[in-house]
Amino acid sequence: MAFDDVIRLAQQKGFFFRSADSYPNSPAGFWDYGPLGVSMRNKFVELWRRSFVKREEMVEIDGAQILPRAVFEASGHLSGFTDPFVRCAKCGSVFRPDKLVEEKTGEQVPEKLSDSDYDALMEKSGVKCQKCGSKLAGTSRFNMMFRVGIGPLQEEAYLRPETCQSIFVDFPLLFKTQRIKLPVGFAQVGRSFRNEIAPRQALIRVRELNQAEVEVFFNPSRTDDPRFDELASTQLRMQMADGSEKQISAGEAVSQGVVPNKLIGHHLALLVRFYEAAGLAGDVLRFRVLSEKDRAFYSKAAFDLEAKLSVGWVELVACNYRSDYDLSRHSKQSGTDFRVDDNGEKVLPHVFELSMGVDRSIYAILETSMRVEGERRSLALKPYLAPMKAGVFPLVNKDGLPEMAQKVYSALANDFDVFLDDSGSIGRRYARADEVGVPYCVTVDYDSLKDGTVTLRERDTRSQERVKAEELGTRIGGLTRFPPVFG
Amino acid sequence: MAFDDVIRLAQQKGFFFRSADSYPNSPAGFWDYGPLGVSMRNKFVELWRRSFVKREEMVEIDGAQILPRAVFEASGHLSGFTDPFVRCAKCGSVFRPDKLVEEKTGEQVPEKLSDSDYDALMEKSGVKCQKCGSKLAGTSRFNMMFRVGIGPLQEEAYLRPETCQSIFVDFPLLFKTQRIKLPVGFAQVGRSFRNEIAPRQALIRVRELNQAEVEVFFNPSRTDDPRFDELASTQLRMQMADGSEKQISAGEAVSQGVVPNKLIGHHLALLVRFYEAAGLAGDVLRFRVLSEKDRAFYSKAAFDLEAKLSVGWVELVACNYRSDYDLSRHSKQSGTDFRVDDNGEKVLPHVFELSMGVDRSIYAILETSMRVEGERRSLALKPYLAPMKAGVFPLVNKDGLPEMAQKVYSALANDFDVFLDDSGSIGRRYARADEVGVPYCVTVDYDSLKDGTVTLRERDTRSQERVKAEELGTRIGGLTRFPPVFG
Repeated sequence: MAFDDVIRLAQQKGFFFRSADSYPNSPAGFWDYGPLGVSMRNKFVELWRRSFVKREEMVEIDGAQILPRAVFEASGHLSGFTDPFVRCAKCGSVFRPDKLVEEKTGEQVPEKLSDSDYDALMEKSGVKCQKCGSKLAGTSRFNMMFRVGIGPLQEEAYLRPETCQSIFVDFPLLFKTQRIKLPVGFAQVGRSFRNEIAPRQALIRVRELNQAEVEVFFNPSRTDDPRFDELASTQLRMQMADGSEKQISAGEAVSQGVVPNKLIGHHLALLVRFYEAAGLAGDVLRFRVLSEKDRAFYSKAAFDLEAKLSVGWVELVACNYRSDYDLSRHSKQSGTDFRVDDNGEKVLPHVFELSMGVDRSIYAILETSMRVEGERRSLALKPYLAPMKAGVFPLVNKDGLPEMAQKVYSALANDFDVFLDDSGSIGRRYARADEVGVPYCVTVDYDSLKDGTVTLRERDTRSQERVKAEELGTRIGGLTRFPPVFG
Repeated sequence: MAFDDVIRLAQQKGFFFRSADSYPNSPAGFWDYGPLGVSMRNKFVELWRRSFVKREEMVEIDGAQILPRAVFEASGHLSGFTDPFVRCAKCGSVFRPDKLVEEKTGEQVPEKLSDSDYDALMEKSGVKCQKCGSKLAGTSRFNMMFRVGIGPLQEEAYLRPETCQSIFVDFPLLFKTQRIKLPVGFAQVGRSFRNEIAPRQALIRVRELNQAEVEVFFNPSRTDDPRFDELASTQLRMQMADGSEKQISAGEAVSQGVVPNKLIGHHLALLVRFYEAAGLAGDVLRFRVLSEKDRAFYSKAAFDLEAKLSVGWVELVACNYRSDYDLSRHSKQSGTDFRVDDNGEKVLPHVFELSMGVDRSIYAILETSMRVEGERRSLALKPYLAPMKAGVFPLVNKDGLPEMAQKVYSALANDFDVFLDDSGSIGRRYARADEVGVPYCVTVDYDSLKDGTVTLRERDTRSQERVKAEELGTRIGGLTRFPPVFG
């Protein structure tokens, strides 16, 4: 489905829409979630929590979004989290040099060039200001963290550009108090902030984002994850650094050295299983293996999980074997010992990170779920991710049908997200429900008054059956249940 | 229970703790939630969502936390959201003048004084710098919003000081797309930011806070809420503006004019029912009626819901009849028509707001739930708010008991937050579970292997019974279920 169709659906039905849109010239890159978006995102987070936090017995935290300067000195964001930009000498417009060159030449510009390399490329391709056509100044650097000042003295602090820094900083305290052992995953879902120069593509590149991050702490000399066999047969599609493609099992990936160890192989497999459960089938997903020069200097291996969407391959999760970089830097900067005991050995744990973009994932699920057959539009969401589980419809608004529909609705509302709809023809009501992915519709008709049964209609097959009203809760419960945590 | 005991439990067990605490001199007023805190807060939000959003069919949104300057020009925060402060001329320390005077004299200073009134009070009471004893400069004003700059041009924007501004700004779009009618509640739960001069008392006065806000939009000429009768008998304890106290039903409050109309009476009753369900019994709560001079100029009535805690009466929810102030200001500033149709009449809705502090509520529930009997410490949380529903304990770590305990655990983990604990005596494991409010413990013993039953032990009564392992899910499901949404 095309990008514009997704955005139109999102806006018209209230999944998400531009923030402060009633104001002219509101800044780009900020989005609000409406009722269906909030509900669907909550369900997506619940699936994530079950698939990672619960299954792997992780430690979930929720940290402050504002952190002091020292934390970002240690993390390297203060010096290194910059984007290149150029400014028009005449009209003051601001652009990214790589994007200007890409749009002019149609060729991709490599990442992480030096300022002088960008200047040379701009010179060569002859780019000008896209707004007024004037000459552009040379490349400058812009730190993408939002700075804030704390208290009347305006103490220097920043909005976190990723959730994981609180995990690293809280690690020593929680390791002590939570009765845990290595290896252990820490998890956090929450808001992060990146002052993008050119936000674009709706939820795909934003300035305020929702992340779900997992940091697995482990002893680098013990990477034989005992749970590896459970998921070793999971198929991974790998786009190798040399451009070739491999379709191999997680087990093969480890034995062939494509993935450095079982612990990492286990978590990549877990990720594929998670997105399959979210409805992104295997062929839509691939891991892009990052070459040494595309990785940070401390990174020992990195894999971007990407989804094939209408706008191209989009990174959903950055997976990065970060060595002991984070804990050693925070240990040094804070003067706190971050080493922990592992079977009598004092060790500074290594970290494997799974950094998931929640908004991008929501976008990807919506795009790949949209179906059009003739006039009919539907959203083939997995029932457990659907924002609403069922609509309850009285066939007509008289003769006691609305009262019975209200009873059916109230009984279901204790356990499920359901809604009542009594306006327009039943066909029109089905169509509205299909369009926003409601998996089940319940119609109360004249027979219902006689024998206590209702029509239960399924979204994708459009099949209908008669069900006893008192059994609806059990039926809908079974049909919309999350996949089991174990097994 | 004393404040310090709550903070100690929170830190030791991982409910919440100071942010970036491994760093020396981290700024005050920022807190991180640990695993038990995240889980308990999620359950609290779920209770709120059921009691307000679901029961009243509200429109829930989740908006961006950064909003442009124009929004806060309209809201009045840019000019009016300030706190008074004084600075020591010698050491540079910063204080609030009202707090200095209160701490020196032991008498309460009225809110909202002018700068010269504060100066006069400081002069009269002879306060000095609390740090170095030097003379203090005169009162200045400090805007409590955190300012951020967007993009390389550093466009002026702010972290929202309350969640409700997105609700107001999104109102016209959502009223159009969501097929709704007046009266309608909009709801949002999320982070807000207030650059407090003197954050204190842990979660009670912080710089980064979690709010759950409801804005009810209504036609001011139709305030006869048809659902009023359902809750009219709810008892409200009112602390009147003249200092007297009244214990009256919501129905009486409306008929006596203590509460301006049925719509507002209905929502005050709803709030009391919500906190009762959260475990704050009626005598811990009161509504403080704000006098005209304590209210904002646009406010037609205001009630603070307060809880009696070890640190005094603490405001949990600010309830405010805001007239059409917000919508008219945003309409004017944005140039967008915010009026909507109500039965053929074009109307700019009035707003009744319920602005709930989530962190304060969590603190209040913890403090009032802590029990000490001799050596025994427990947390009498409502089972549906408990972060963990059950612990599963093998009596000994041999003879197949751990394997059976693992099976019991895995089966329960699909539907509930449960944990396995096999370390220490059973008594010790019960004690650890009691301390963090786990309502049920399941022990697997030798009889379990023979007859498939386990011991189910309840936290508050410490009563034990034998239950078939396969019936545990149903039993624990019933025992930890949220109160019904309707009725």
